[in-house]
Amino acid sequence: MGKILGKQSIVFENPPYIIEGASVVGPKEGEGPLGKLFDVVEQDPMLGQDSWEDAESLLQKEALQKVLLKARINRADIRYIFAGDLLGQLIGTTFGVLEYEIPLFGIYGACSTMGEALSLAAIMVEAGNAENVVAMTSSHFASAERQFRFPLEYGNQRPFSATWTVTGAGAVVIGKGKGFAKITGITTGKIVDYGVKDAQNMGACMAPAAADILYQHFQDFNSTPADYDKIITGDLGLVGKTILFDLLNEHGYDIAKVHMDCGVEMFDASEQDTHAGGSGCGCAATVLTSYIFKQLKKKAYKKILFIPTGALHSTISFNEGNSVPGIAHCVQIECC
Amino acid sequence: MGKILGKQSIVFENPPYIIEGASVVGPKEGEGPLGKLFDVVEQDPMLGQDSWEDAESLLQKEALQKVLLKARINRADIRYIFAGDLLGQLIGTTFGVLEYEIPLFGIYGACSTMGEALSLAAIMVEAGNAENVVAMTSSHFASAERQFRFPLEYGNQRPFSATWTVTGAGAVVIGKGKGFAKITGITTGKIVDYGVKDAQNMGACMAPAAADILYQHFQDFNSTPADYDKIITGDLGLVGKTILFDLLNEHGYDIAKVHMDCGVEMFDASEQDTHAGGSGCGCAATVLTSYIFKQLKKKAYKKILFIPTGALHSTISFNEGNSVPGIAHCVQIECC
Repeated sequence: MGKILGKQSIVFENPPYIIEGASVVGPKEGEGPLGKLFDVVEQDPMLGQDSWEDAESLLQKEALQKVLLKARINRADIRYIFAGDLLGQLIGTTFGVLEYEIPLFGIYGACSTMGEALSLAAIMVEAGNAENVVAMTSSHFASAERQFRFPLEYGNQRPFSATWTVTGAGAVVIGKGKGFAKITGITTGKIVDYGVKDAQNMGACMAPAAADILYQHFQDFNSTPADYDKIITGDLGLVGKTILFDLLNEHGYDIAKVHMDCGVEMFDASEQDTHAGGSGCGCAATVLTSYIFKQLKKKAYKKILFIPTGALHSTISFNEGNSVPGIAHCVQIECC
Repeated sequence: MGKILGKQSIVFENPPYIIEGASVVGPKEGEGPLGKLFDVVEQDPMLGQDSWEDAESLLQKEALQKVLLKARINRADIRYIFAGDLLGQLIGTTFGVLEYEIPLFGIYGACSTMGEALSLAAIMVEAGNAENVVAMTSSHFASAERQFRFPLEYGNQRPFSATWTVTGAGAVVIGKGKGFAKITGITTGKIVDYGVKDAQNMGACMAPAAADILYQHFQDFNSTPADYDKIITGDLGLVGKTILFDLLNEHGYDIAKVHMDCGVEMFDASEQDTHAGGSGCGCAATVLTSYIFKQLKKKAYKKILFIPTGALHSTISFNEGNSVPGIAHCVQIECC
């Protein structure tokens, strides 16, 4: 049974296992520094579909198929899926998981969604409500640009603080059976709003939420940055990362030595014109299910924090003058 | 601990309690047949805000405040909120709960969201991960029209199969402490797609999902319609209701005697020009927290099924020619 810890955390007394993960990405991600580590690199960003949105759904479909194959688990043995994406009304997820006929909990936490999915999947398994649960998220550069910014055909300029939405999906099977790692605790985020209104600088919008949840995690678990081999944020990028360091320094925590940001790792910014880094639900999800899981499997990482962050806005809220608040969900993972 | 039951259900061995509920609605809902039963009827559909979206956020803010007051629980004693709405990227929820600083799991199941929220809140409490959790959803007629259909200024015609999105928010506190009812089981829906492409006939899109989940619930719990005082769907409306009856009749179940649909009850269709009935996340949520909870409190209902249904689409998926699949989440509630 889970045990309530501190203000915002749960520590799992019988930690659920991470049984397997799978990652599917687009061509640009395949050309990046982590390119060789993904399970599947699609060579066509449209995946042969007629729309970007259908392409994104296919990414989820493929990631789910791949993780079931890798884990040697049948579709019928997955009790629930916790999944989400960035598109309005989660249409990426809807058409991605439809054919699998698995009970679905649709979730939305912007780019923090993989943290939310892992948290809820872990709770479900640990409480004895399921043998196996899938946590999955996706994003697609072109569908996200249409959803949040301008039609690609405009060829609009991107400021250097802007990030590049990752085309990719990551899926994880959490279960009771033996896996290579376990989820030993979670710290669940609240919405944090510093009043930033620049939707082209999402790192700045999300960094306060990352700082807030990390500070709370250290308090709840009575831990320090030195207790972790890596503290991994989702897609703060180069701008958000610096702000996170500054905010945590104010609380007396220096995480620079153990910090890694999935968005910073995903692309070679100078070669790939991605400015502040990669972003999107698919960014943290695909780096988790490729590079990070490989490090856990070979025990290069023994204990990590995975903290994807989300910027909570829509074109409507933005155009009506609202700020872009952030949220972050922290998942503590240990190899075994 | 929850116990896995059948293919898609959980039966709670230590059922979490429904401690209190609160409902806030707009003026049109206040003039409907249930008008006197809501906690708050706002007289201005804008709630004094500058945008429909800000008005919807305020509905959530008020519903949350009201339920805490009614339950005599402090904000700090709510461990988690499970909340969602119909707007892209859940901006109704984001700006509705922001000030409360309570850890948030954002969820999306279209109009089934209250069923999803209650399910996850119940799991959280029963697993010992929280003393009190809030489940909350909202919708707003005008923000939903902007999100899904046409600008109100167009004055477009609505077919008779169309429903009228309810302006309202409902909030429920689920907890370990004594309440007037308990959640004794859940059956979680999968996406069901009959290929219907008419977004102006959401009843037809959702009825197959309602039939699917009800059939599965009867199988998993080895029960029949006669075991329940009421079987309550969310917003199938007059068209969807008939389809649900037909589909269940094919399986040998006749629910007509015990069935009620929140969308049908919400408005007087002939007087209020609402065509097939009310709809939206706020429809099931406000009828649950007003009329239904009152019936449970006075033990007029001893055992019910609450099954909000959602139509999974966006303007993008619809305009790209995709169908509108449905999903439904079933919650078994018993008075105590």
